Amino acid sequence: MTFSFYSQENHGPFELFNLGDFELKNGDKLRGLSLAYATFGTLAPDKSNAILFPTWYGGSSKSLELAFVGKGRALDPDQYFIILVNQIGNGLSSSPSNNAFPFNAASFPQISIADDVRAQHRLITEKFGIEKLALVLGGSMGAQQTYEWTVRFPDFVKRAAPIAGTAKGTAHNRLLVEVFIEAVTSDPAFDEGWYKEGSVHRGLRRLAHLFAAFGYTEQLFNQRGWSGLGFTSADDFIKGALEAYFVPQDPNNLMLMARKWQNADSSLIAGGDLSTAFARIKAKTFVVAIEEDKFFPLKDIAHEQALIPGSELKLISSIWGHLALLGADPQFNLAIDGILKELLASQ
Amino acid sequence: MTFSFYSQENHGPFELFNLGDFELKNGDKLRGLSLAYATFGTLAPDKSNAILFPTWYGGSSKSLELAFVGKGRALDPDQYFIILVNQIGNGLSSSPSNNAFPFNAASFPQISIADDVRAQHRLITEKFGIEKLALVLGGSMGAQQTYEWTVRFPDFVKRAAPIAGTAKGTAHNRLLVEVFIEAVTSDPAFDEGWYKEGSVHRGLRRLAHLFAAFGYTEQLFNQRGWSGLGFTSADDFIKGALEAYFVPQDPNNLMLMARKWQNADSSLIAGGDLSTAFARIKAKTFVVAIEEDKFFPLKDIAHEQALIPGSELKLISSIWGHLALLGADPQFNLAIDGILKELLASQ
Repeated sequence: MTFSFYSQENHGPFELFNLGDFELKNGDKLRGLSLAYATFGTLAPDKSNAILFPTWYGGSSKSLELAFVGKGRALDPDQYFIILVNQIGNGLSSSPSNNAFPFNAASFPQISIADDVRAQHRLITEKFGIEKLALVLGGSMGAQQTYEWTVRFPDFVKRAAPIAGTAKGTAHNRLLVEVFIEAVTSDPAFDEGWYKEGSVHRGLRRLAHLFAAFGYTEQLFNQRGWSGLGFTSADDFIKGALEAYFVPQDPNNLMLMARKWQNADSSLIAGGDLSTAFARIKAKTFVVAIEEDKFFPLKDIAHEQALIPGSELKLISSIWGHLALLGADPQFNLAIDGILKELLASQ
Repeated sequence: MTFSFYSQENHGPFELFNLGDFELKNGDKLRGLSLAYATFGTLAPDKSNAILFPTWYGGSSKSLELAFVGKGRALDPDQYFIILVNQIGNGLSSSPSNNAFPFNAASFPQISIADDVRAQHRLITEKFGIEKLALVLGGSMGAQQTYEWTVRFPDFVKRAAPIAGTAKGTAHNRLLVEVFIEAVTSDPAFDEGWYKEGSVHRGLRRLAHLFAAFGYTEQLFNQRGWSGLGFTSADDFIKGALEAYFVPQDPNNLMLMARKWQNADSSLIAGGDLSTAFARIKAKTFVVAIEEDKFFPLKDIAHEQALIPGSELKLISSIWGHLALLGADPQFNLAIDGILKELLASQ
């Protein structure tokens, strides 16, 4: 089964880096791991201008490009060599939807954030010969990967910007992701992951409605904040923005990424102690929170930031809530660019 | 079909007031409408000490009693005659679960908040001969009914305390309730409301998980705020508090109340204009918001309060969020009692 949604036409151009068989942290083996990535700009001769940016939940390198990359933006291809890397399971990198039988679909192994980061480390060293990244950044699940980079490969990360995410999931965050998972797996068509393509659309629509209800703020709805994008009603917006985002995707991919999100824990490298894990960090770290975020609340982010030596907490307010990450709020884009430019200018 | 859950043993003692056939606002007729209610204290000879308190979503008169009524509390039976009235559809008053064929189960007519208030008006006038209530109060859907009382029967309400609710649902609130509805109706066992008793428990468990994820705050989970109640883990708490609350209930009852919640709009009495509707209010009104509330956010409540002549906005903070209403937070209980005592002492 292959999903036509995950095509070069929809998400490209992207390239593939083949890592061969890849041993996972849980002891399983992922056969023929392939990481999909897109690059922008030119790697400097001294390789000092590389930025790594892994994807968020359900996003692709194209999503990141549209929301963050461009001339005049903080991530300016004229200045930096920007590597947008697709997380395992997102449909472009090795995923339930594209892996070969018998390790496809519901038989794809469970992946951890640490697996993604270990694979990405091989991409930047083996493919590009990069020994130090000028910046690792990411939003949401991308922040989870960013934190993992800072503690797992501290010497490779000069600067880090985890945005709207945490290093270690809270009990509440795990519950949040559980209701996302239940929305999809409760669809009888899901059939424990052995569904017919396209048949789980009711469950995926419910997932979209949950993201609409909690990914944004009440103010966005009250102020009809979507009208500038051409949407005519809340219902029109929910369909046009979020059903459009989730319904074309592969349910097993989305469930794999959700479990990865749910189990994210960068303290594991230090036996489960977050302070000890954070003591490994050498990067100059700007921790960014969205004040209205209901997925990764400010208080949870601030609690972790206080444990990171030399870090700074940066706040952005947006009626788009957590999903401001997707780039629809020009004020958010300006604010995040300001923060990233300040970080990139620091030594 | 009758659900043993809705018994005198579980929710009593309560009494029934029979209104006969009742014409609904939508033109339908509810045959043999019965309102279940419980009273505490003694009605004064001049009938000046009556308090009316309608139920919230999925609650009963017993829920209100346990959370709000008692010696030394604001609602003290030594001082007041307290009428706890069960909303239509809650399983004690006329409901899909207890109505006679052929108007039972999924064939029960849709009810509006205005229908509840019109029926409650007949209860207090015909049963008790009360012409003016010292206080009408309610939380969540009880606040919706309280607002409806103040605009529909302004001369009957001396004081009003809508708590953690709004008079007119926002687009976001309707979306929130829609995801509640989808959690239950997506269960194939629901079968458009023609289920076998007990078979929809998976959908009801998902509803419980949504209430857990958004009815409380992240801080409650992070601080293990439930441990004082004897729960050992987040999972244990979710089962013991919220699955216990919803799973024994009748799914059609819960869906009827959810639609009523979703369509609540006290501006309809003034052709849809909320300011004109609020101009009818004669009650001294304390509008109470829970600062951390995700079901009825402070900003939405404050927006309405500003339109109510002579009203005051009262804030309570609780890590129990919206579900502080249920009475588990002693600090919330103290705070709400202080507000209600101040209101009851005012002329």
